Amino acid sequence: MTSKTFVVITGLALLSGCGSPDVDVEAEEKHLMDLSREWSAVAAGDDVEDLMSYWSDDAVMMAPGQPPLRGKEAIREFVTSTGEIPGFSISWEPLEAHVAESGDMGYMIEQNQITIPDSTGDLVTQYNKVITVWEKREDGSWKNVVDMWNSDPSREK
Amino acid sequence: MTSKTFVVITGLALLSGCGSPDVDVEAEEKHLMDLSREWSAVAAGDDVEDLMSYWSDDAVMMAPGQPPLRGKEAIREFVTSTGEIPGFSISWEPLEAHVAESGDMGYMIEQNQITIPDSTGDLVTQYNKVITVWEKREDGSWKNVVDMWNSDPSREK
Repeated sequence: MTSKTFVVITGLALLSGCGSPDVDVEAEEKHLMDLSREWSAVAAGDDVEDLMSYWSDDAVMMAPGQPPLRGKEAIREFVTSTGEIPGFSISWEPLEAHVAESGDMGYMIEQNQITIPDSTGDLVTQYNKVITVWEKREDGSWKNVVDMWNSDPSREK
Repeated sequence: MTSKTFVVITGLALLSGCGSPDVDVEAEEKHLMDLSREWSAVAAGDDVEDLMSYWSDDAVMMAPGQPPLRGKEAIREFVTSTGEIPGFSISWEPLEAHVAESGDMGYMIEQNQITIPDSTGDLVTQYNKVITVWEKREDGSWKNVVDMWNSDPSREK
């Protein structure tokens, strides 16, 4: 066999042999940061289905003072109820993203602001730190599988 | 070239071609669950350095009502100060673990119990839900890179 034949066969074998192609981790991390900013912009609107589309069907929301909300229906119920609170608003920004070498899992450290009426009806803004965990689905789309936040007094204005 | 030669060359190419060896994701997930239980047992003792050894040097602790505590020194300071509170204790249990295909990142949903004195000095126990994120280091050891918790009223006794 010629060395040329060897190179061709080896090349073909390499192309077909690996479970997943090389992952550009930095590009995936940038993609997650962009996705978070995009999601926050969607949350400023009133399209609940668009908002819901960022969660996986089996996502778990870990909101302060709530039991874990498991699955899209439980999350939809929570999101819908908060959306009906007069004056309620939420926005967030990602601070850093980290993606696994295989490109199928990642997480972000983020921060959010939630404005709601206090017991007297005056609107108050809560400042929180956030962790979100993401998994890439078969179709190549990233979906949120866990999001959790709690208060960050260092951000209070 | 004979088909036998092709098989041999292809086999060699497959063996050498993939960036990372096959990862037993289920075994890694079980390992993380065991590591969490082990860490909780260590937290019941008074060996701060053993307790600290589970965090990565660049870990971020996201405790309720605290700014993000970035890095092992900030975490050590917090852990030491809480450890000095009379009657303080913490324990936790992992509920589920998920590891990336590459075996270098994983996360767990957990729950913890924190007992501390209230304003009158009576010991009270807080029940929390928890997210921990883990990364595997060069030496093959898993280290905690983020842990975050908040209250879960559904667990109050």
